[in-house]
Amino acid sequence: MTYCVGFLLEDGLVFASDSRTNAGVDYISTYSKMHVFQPSPDRLFVLMAAGNLGTTQAVLNRIRRDLDRGPAAVVDPEAAPDLRTARYLFEAADYIGRISVAVQNTFAESLRQVGATGEASFILGGQITGQPHGLQMIYPQGNSVIATIDTPYLQIGESKYGKPPLDHIGHTKLSLEDAARLCFVSQVITRRSNLTVGPPFEIAMMPRDQLRISRRLKYAKGAPEITRVVEIWSRTMQEGLARLPRFAWEEDPL
Amino acid sequence: MTYCVGFLLEDGLVFASDSRTNAGVDYISTYSKMHVFQPSPDRLFVLMAAGNLGTTQAVLNRIRRDLDRGPAAVVDPEAAPDLRTARYLFEAADYIGRISVAVQNTFAESLRQVGATGEASFILGGQITGQPHGLQMIYPQGNSVIATIDTPYLQIGESKYGKPPLDHIGHTKLSLEDAARLCFVSQVITRRSNLTVGPPFEIAMMPRDQLRISRRLKYAKGAPEITRVVEIWSRTMQEGLARLPRFAWEEDPL
Repeated sequence: MTYCVGFLLEDGLVFASDSRTNAGVDYISTYSKMHVFQPSPDRLFVLMAAGNLGTTQAVLNRIRRDLDRGPAAVVDPEAAPDLRTARYLFEAADYIGRISVAVQNTFAESLRQVGATGEASFILGGQITGQPHGLQMIYPQGNSVIATIDTPYLQIGESKYGKPPLDHIGHTKLSLEDAARLCFVSQVITRRSNLTVGPPFEIAMMPRDQLRISRRLKYAKGAPEITRVVEIWSRTMQEGLARLPRFAWEEDPL
Repeated sequence: MTYCVGFLLEDGLVFASDSRTNAGVDYISTYSKMHVFQPSPDRLFVLMAAGNLGTTQAVLNRIRRDLDRGPAAVVDPEAAPDLRTARYLFEAADYIGRISVAVQNTFAESLRQVGATGEASFILGGQITGQPHGLQMIYPQGNSVIATIDTPYLQIGESKYGKPPLDHIGHTKLSLEDAARLCFVSQVITRRSNLTVGPPFEIAMMPRDQLRISRRLKYAKGAPEITRVVEIWSRTMQEGLARLPRFAWEEDPL
């Protein structure tokens, strides 16, 4: 499994991903799930992937191959947009959705015969000059949804364990740093409760209108930052429990 | 969906359940999922159910019918144990597992034809005089596992959202009241993140070696206790976030 979360903020975008990949419980490996693309100076994209590793790697390979071709001398106005030619973020999301569906279709029958699926999901965030920064989740079927001020974060993979902190205290006015801490907490508590999510944890911050990743962090297994978050979050919850109202029959502890 | 959690403590047992039942999103109703049985003065059981409502209700009906028959004048030593004759908690769990599988088998084919399943899971907790108190989860296949000092809680239904607080601060030395608060938090944050879990929330506490439910609580929709927990838990997480270490490039806020 995998857990990736992207956060849409007034000030920009934050991305967080784990690096655990597993096929069953006896084939566990480490792959980064966060990929940065800057096909031209007027745009920057971050793509996070969850699901069938064969599919996600094939999608990345095809994106890179398309970019390697370089800009067409004369841009064909009829051609479907790709990462370089998309004028809107949704066009880039559609492009990735199309590739993903094509890859899945290639292997769908052979995977079905062994009871497996090639499904994959993506979170695409970024900005194209002249457009607002944005965040979009691409479903295995190729369609996608955006993050908004009301639903400022998007998750793929093992999303349930880490959702409550995002729901309770996440909002678009957080600083990039606070949102990064919140996404890191969401990752770390997910890892505590589910073996299929694990470090290295990666975080990227992308300030609005700057077309750059301002910070990129990676916390490997055993990193003191991870231990520290677990300690602080445990103590926080301890204190929260102690703060909850007594039942009517209990003596007031104060 | 449903969310039930049982907690094994040195001092006894705590049970917490929601009351939301849904078939799709347009048929949502309210059913208690917590059921107390005291078939004779030497034993007390609490049974919580999740899964297909037809199955769980049929299982409860059959348990009650078996108990209505009253004790056999001469107990057949060959008969499989039921709630009245079980000498161990695991025998009671096996009995419920057998009924559950039998009910599921009755409807398996007709359900399969419409793409549905009759699967149900149960948490059985309680005590039989002369035995320690215990907690057991019964799978749809009829087999079961127990809670232990290392794994003191068991969950059925929509279990992921509410797992991190249990993992971080749950242990068997908690008081019944603290464990009840923790399970209540686990329920309330699950409800915040998932529409298929909802009030009334029920809580029961069973002190060890007393063969009685010492406290039973029910918090209906809109209850101030629910609002209070949401407020306190949100504030707690806010403070936790503020307490997390700054990144190296940030000024120390202190």
